[in-house]
Amino acid sequence: MLRLSTKDSGFAQAFRRLVRDRRESDEDVARDVALILADVRNRGDEAVAELTRRFDGHSLSDDAAWRIERAECREAFEALKPDLRAALELAAQRIRAFHEAQKPENRDYVDDAGIRLGAVWRPVDAAGLYVPGGRAAYPSSLLMNAIPAKVAGVERLVVTTPTPRGETNPLVMAAAYLAGVDELWRVGGAQAVAALAYGTQRIRAVDVVTGPGNAWVAEAKRQLYGVVGIDMVAGPSEILVIADANNDPEWIATDLLSQAEHDPAAQSILITDDALFADTVADRVGVEIAMLETARVADQSWNRHGVIIEVESLDEAPALANALAAEHVEIATDDPEALFARIRHAGSVFLGRHTPEAVGDYIAGPNHVLPTGRRARFASGLSVLDFMKRTSFIQLDQAALAAIGPAAIALADAEGLPAHARSIEVRLGL
Amino acid sequence: MLRLSTKDSGFAQAFRRLVRDRRESDEDVARDVALILADVRNRGDEAVAELTRRFDGHSLSDDAAWRIERAECREAFEALKPDLRAALELAAQRIRAFHEAQKPENRDYVDDAGIRLGAVWRPVDAAGLYVPGGRAAYPSSLLMNAIPAKVAGVERLVVTTPTPRGETNPLVMAAAYLAGVDELWRVGGAQAVAALAYGTQRIRAVDVVTGPGNAWVAEAKRQLYGVVGIDMVAGPSEILVIADANNDPEWIATDLLSQAEHDPAAQSILITDDALFADTVADRVGVEIAMLETARVADQSWNRHGVIIEVESLDEAPALANALAAEHVEIATDDPEALFARIRHAGSVFLGRHTPEAVGDYIAGPNHVLPTGRRARFASGLSVLDFMKRTSFIQLDQAALAAIGPAAIALADAEGLPAHARSIEVRLGL
Repeated sequence: MLRLSTKDSGFAQAFRRLVRDRRESDEDVARDVALILADVRNRGDEAVAELTRRFDGHSLSDDAAWRIERAECREAFEALKPDLRAALELAAQRIRAFHEAQKPENRDYVDDAGIRLGAVWRPVDAAGLYVPGGRAAYPSSLLMNAIPAKVAGVERLVVTTPTPRGETNPLVMAAAYLAGVDELWRVGGAQAVAALAYGTQRIRAVDVVTGPGNAWVAEAKRQLYGVVGIDMVAGPSEILVIADANNDPEWIATDLLSQAEHDPAAQSILITDDALFADTVADRVGVEIAMLETARVADQSWNRHGVIIEVESLDEAPALANALAAEHVEIATDDPEALFARIRHAGSVFLGRHTPEAVGDYIAGPNHVLPTGRRARFASGLSVLDFMKRTSFIQLDQAALAAIGPAAIALADAEGLPAHARSIEVRLGL
Repeated sequence: MLRLSTKDSGFAQAFRRLVRDRRESDEDVARDVALILADVRNRGDEAVAELTRRFDGHSLSDDAAWRIERAECREAFEALKPDLRAALELAAQRIRAFHEAQKPENRDYVDDAGIRLGAVWRPVDAAGLYVPGGRAAYPSSLLMNAIPAKVAGVERLVVTTPTPRGETNPLVMAAAYLAGVDELWRVGGAQAVAALAYGTQRIRAVDVVTGPGNAWVAEAKRQLYGVVGIDMVAGPSEILVIADANNDPEWIATDLLSQAEHDPAAQSILITDDALFADTVADRVGVEIAMLETARVADQSWNRHGVIIEVESLDEAPALANALAAEHVEIATDDPEALFARIRHAGSVFLGRHTPEAVGDYIAGPNHVLPTGRRARFASGLSVLDFMKRTSFIQLDQAALAAIGPAAIALADAEGLPAHARSIEVRLGL
C-alpha cells in the first residue's frame, strides 16, 4: 500500500505517477484475436466448435451441447433458495425501474423558419451479451447488461458464455431466465464475440455486443468495434473513498476491500484529512483481509495498488478525484453535497456514510457497468442508450426551401460541390 | 450502375450481395499507424515535427508554423464575401439551435424505498476535432463537429488540420473563428490524432477526438479508442432515395449525384415503383454528370456503386431500406409519413419532395456526421452526447440500507464476494 500526503515535497510527482499508472493487461493478444476472428468469419460454426474444444474442453457435438434451453434456465431459477430468488427479483425490479426512466424522448417540431425537424430513438434489433465463465461469472452482471437491453426494447437478446469442461453455472442460468434472455449459447472467448458480430450458421449476428470478459474478449470487442456496436473498453475495477475522521474505520476498510477482492489488479484509494484515521483504517484493512475467503486476491490488490492520501483539508479532494476520474467514488461525510458538486469525472458517486459501494453493485438500480482506467473523463456507465440509436429527420416545403436553400447553395459552391447546389437550385427553379 | 428488380428470380441473392458489399478501404495501414502512435507517444513534438515534414512537406520550425492564431482566423472570417459569411452564420445559428435542444436532463429523485438516485451529465474538459486537408476540407464539417462540443459546454476545443506545403484553407479558418475554436494546430494524419490523445509538449491531451479523415486518421482513432473517446468509425457517404413516378426526374437525379460527387467510393441507390421513371432518372443522371465540375468522381461512384431497384410497390421499400441501413434516406412521395414509420435503420431521413439531402449537409440544423456502412443499425449521428458523459449517484440513509441491504448481502454471498457483503453488514450491525 502506498501512503502519500499532499504536504510531502514529492507529492505532485508521486500523484502524477498514480494517475498515469495503467493496471491493464498489456498481454499482446491482438494477433491471436485477429486470427480467431478471421477463422470464425470464414468457417463459422466449424471454427467455433474447434476453438471451443481447444480452449474450453467442451464438445459442441449436438444441439444440447450448443445451447442451454430456456426450460433449463427456468429450472435453475425455480431451484434457487427463496431468499436468493427474492434478492435477484428485487435487484431486477430496481434495475428495471431506474433504467425505464432513462429512455430518451423523441423530438418532432416545426421551427420559426417553417422547417420540421426531429429525432426518433429506436432499439437495435438484436444484442449480444458476453458472460464470462469462472471467477467473474456474476448473475448481477447479467442483470445489469440484459435489463437495459430489454428496457430499450431489443427484440432478440443473446447470451454467450463458456462452459469449461461442460460445467454450467446455475446462478447465471437463473438470472438469464429472470431477465428474459432469448438465446443462451455455450461458447466463450474471442470466438463467441466473433460469432455474435459476424453470425454463423447457428448463431445469427447481433448489432451490439456488451459485457465483461478477459483480455481476449476485450480485444475481440475492440477489433470488431464498427462491425457491431460495443459498450466500452473495460479494465480492472477501482474505488476512491473520500472520508473524514468521523467514520467508523471498519466501515471504510470494508469498502476499500470490496473493490480489492475483485481482482489483483483492482485499486482502492482512500483520501482523508486525518493521519490517525488513515492509520486506523490501514490497520483495520489488515485485520479484515485475514477474515475474507477472498484474502489472497484482496491482499495482492491492496499491497500492489492500494493508496492512502492524506490531505490537509477535504477541500483538496475534488481536484484529486477529477484527476483520477475513478469508476466508483464514495463521499463519506455528513454533508457530501458540497464535495459532490465539485466532482466532474466519476463513473458513479456514493453519497454519505450509509451508502457502501456494494449496494450499487447489486441492488440500488443504477448500472454497475462503469468506465474504468480514467475513462470517466469521457465515458458513461452502461444505459438503455447503448441499445438504442437515433435517426434524425428533416422536412421542408417549397417555402421553407426558398427561405434556407440559397444559403446552402452558397456553402456548396464554396466547398466545390456543384451537385449539392444543383439539387436545391432545380427545386427552386434557379 | 446496377439495375435490379424485386421481380427478378435472382433478386434476393443480388440484394444480399449489395447489403454485404463493403466499400471501405482495406488498405492495411494498421501497422504503420501503430508505429506512428508509439513514436508520438514516446518523442512528442519531435516526432510530430518529423512526420509533418515527411508527409505534409511543412516545417514546424517556430510557433507561427505550429499554430494558426485566432487573429488570423478572424481575418479570414472578415474577408469572406458577404453572402458566404451570412450563409455560414445562418448555418451556425441553425445547427446551434438544433443541438441546444439535445442537451440531456439531469435526474435526482427519491424513490419509494427512500433511496436517492440520479444521474448528472457533464461536458468533457477538452475535445479535439480533426479537419482534413485537401478535397475533404469542408467548413461545414468544422461547424457540425465544433458546435455540438461548444453547446455541450466543452471548455477547450482544439482543431488539428494538415497544411500541405504550408497552404492554409481560409474557409476552414473562418469557420473555426465562427465556431469559437480555441486552438488550431497545423498537424494532420495519424500523428495529429496521437498528439490529441496522448498530448505532447505543445499540444495538451484532449478527452474526445471527432472528425473525418483518411484511412490513417480513421485507423488511428480506432486504435486510440479507449485512451480517448471517439465519435465513430466512418466510411464513404451513401444515399437511398425512395421515389414514386410523380417526381421530377431531374430533382431525383441531382439528389443521387449529390452523394456520388463526394467520393468514388460513395453510393447512391434509387428505389422506385415505376420502370419508366427509373429509366428517365438514369438518363438524366448521365446528362447531369456531364455538367458537373465534379464529373470524374461522380461518374466513377455512379458507375461502380450506383443502383436502381425497381419494386412492384413502394410498400416493399422499408424492408429494403432497413437491410441497407443507409446514412441518408430520402422519401420523395406526397405522404412520406407512412413509409417513414416503418424505417427502423437510417442515419437521417429527408421527408417529402422539397427536402433534398443537401439541405441537411449545410443548413437544416441536425448533424451531418452520420453512421455509414450499415452502422445505422446500432449507431447515431454526432450529437452533444458525444461531448458529455453521465455520472450516476446513490444516497442511502440507515433505514434505506436496512431495507435493501440484506438482498445485496444475499447476492454478494452467492457470488463469493464476502467483503461486499461485509461492507453492508458492518453498517447494519450484523
